[in-house]
Amino acid sequence: MMKCISCKERYGEAEAGTCKECYEEASETEEELKREIDDLKSKISFLRLPSPPLNLLPFTDLLLLPYSDDVDDHHIHDGAVPSPAVRAHKAVLISRSPVFKAMLENEMEESRSGTIKIADVSYDVLRSFVHYLYTAEVLLDERMACDLLVLAEKYQVKHLKSYCEKFMTSKVNSENAIMTFAFAHQHNAPHLLESALSLILDNMDKLTERDEYKELVEKDPRLVVEIYEAYLTRQVNTASNKSQLVVQT
Amino acid sequence: MMKCISCKERYGEAEAGTCKECYEEASETEEELKREIDDLKSKISFLRLPSPPLNLLPFTDLLLLPYSDDVDDHHIHDGAVPSPAVRAHKAVLISRSPVFKAMLENEMEESRSGTIKIADVSYDVLRSFVHYLYTAEVLLDERMACDLLVLAEKYQVKHLKSYCEKFMTSKVNSENAIMTFAFAHQHNAPHLLESALSLILDNMDKLTERDEYKELVEKDPRLVVEIYEAYLTRQVNTASNKSQLVVQT
Repeated sequence: MMKCISCKERYGEAEAGTCKECYEEASETEEELKREIDDLKSKISFLRLPSPPLNLLPFTDLLLLPYSDDVDDHHIHDGAVPSPAVRAHKAVLISRSPVFKAMLENEMEESRSGTIKIADVSYDVLRSFVHYLYTAEVLLDERMACDLLVLAEKYQVKHLKSYCEKFMTSKVNSENAIMTFAFAHQHNAPHLLESALSLILDNMDKLTERDEYKELVEKDPRLVVEIYEAYLTRQVNTASNKSQLVVQT
Repeated sequence: MMKCISCKERYGEAEAGTCKECYEEASETEEELKREIDDLKSKISFLRLPSPPLNLLPFTDLLLLPYSDDVDDHHIHDGAVPSPAVRAHKAVLISRSPVFKAMLENEMEESRSGTIKIADVSYDVLRSFVHYLYTAEVLLDERMACDLLVLAEKYQVKHLKSYCEKFMTSKVNSENAIMTFAFAHQHNAPHLLESALSLILDNMDKLTERDEYKELVEKDPRLVVEIYEAYLTRQVNTASNKSQLVVQT
């Protein structure tokens, strides 16, 4: 019987993990990794720029103007009450997004006027978007992740897009799988697509009863076809795995 | 005899490290830490701003003008050939340095003119300094570390200062210990001071022969006194440790 250096319990041959040398090496690696994490974190806190609406207001050289034609939007827009604008720095936006870069460096209307109109977005979402461009930080809920993924795709902010995609992937369930699948398809989010599809395939027996299914058949039948094709592929694979098992035994 | 999961060697009781459970836990921790490192690195590559002289030139709103009264400088300044200026963004400088913040937000001369003169610095050092403010990256040699530490202290860029201090600490040797000790004292670099002092104390027998020692006695005798005081303290501690050992045996 030997004694574990880590948990101090005694153990026999079957429970043996490492020898002392490997254990010490692993502990050192862990320490090194933790030091590296500390270094990286301090680098991040140095690089993070304060978000402009509060701190850097005096030197901003750009206004982002949210507007929405969406009648389903929570707010009613009749053209009379415009949303407030979000202030920003051209230089920061350029460094974060190739789309803003093209807009602002090529002497387009936006660059001359110092104003960019951002379509189909609420003030809150636009503020969070700009905040993220400065700080790489954002507090997500499901709605916000959805809205920001759309903006991140439009302005090609890869880092934010994959962050939102990861968040949404963690929130997929059998209730929202069909809507999520359609959303992921529309906005090119492959990981989200895959996990939504996988959940749909796990619940094929109830698929055709769901309202979202019926809506999707109306709106985008080709997407529904993709679901069935994936279902077939899975069935074939499962069948061939089973027959392989039969051959092996 | 048991077999180590990590190095596959057999080991006996004396070499026992961990049990299997603790080993697996440690491996998982390592994986998690590595994932965290990947996340942090991608955050950094998002936050890092391109340095302005090459990329963001069109929207800079500030000039940094290096000048040097130092006759020992490599270049000869007769007032006729000014160094080129380094372009930057007020907003970025403000977010990195409380000193620039105070200068630029308080409608001082610098803010109105859009030009800040930086004393006792070469163009190359100033460029590296600004590059660091944008990217948190710099290639150091001993001279550059020294020059940047001074600038970082002057403009209170803590992250850069501690980075230079760490670099210089790794380069202290018995040859440069006295100069480094004086430098660390002048520029408030406690870790550097400590390791330089420690090296000096390790070589007390040759101290008084060294030219730098003689110079320091001329220039700043109080610093030399500090060295001797530290030497005394160390001797007393060593003596009391020895006597404790005697008592214990």
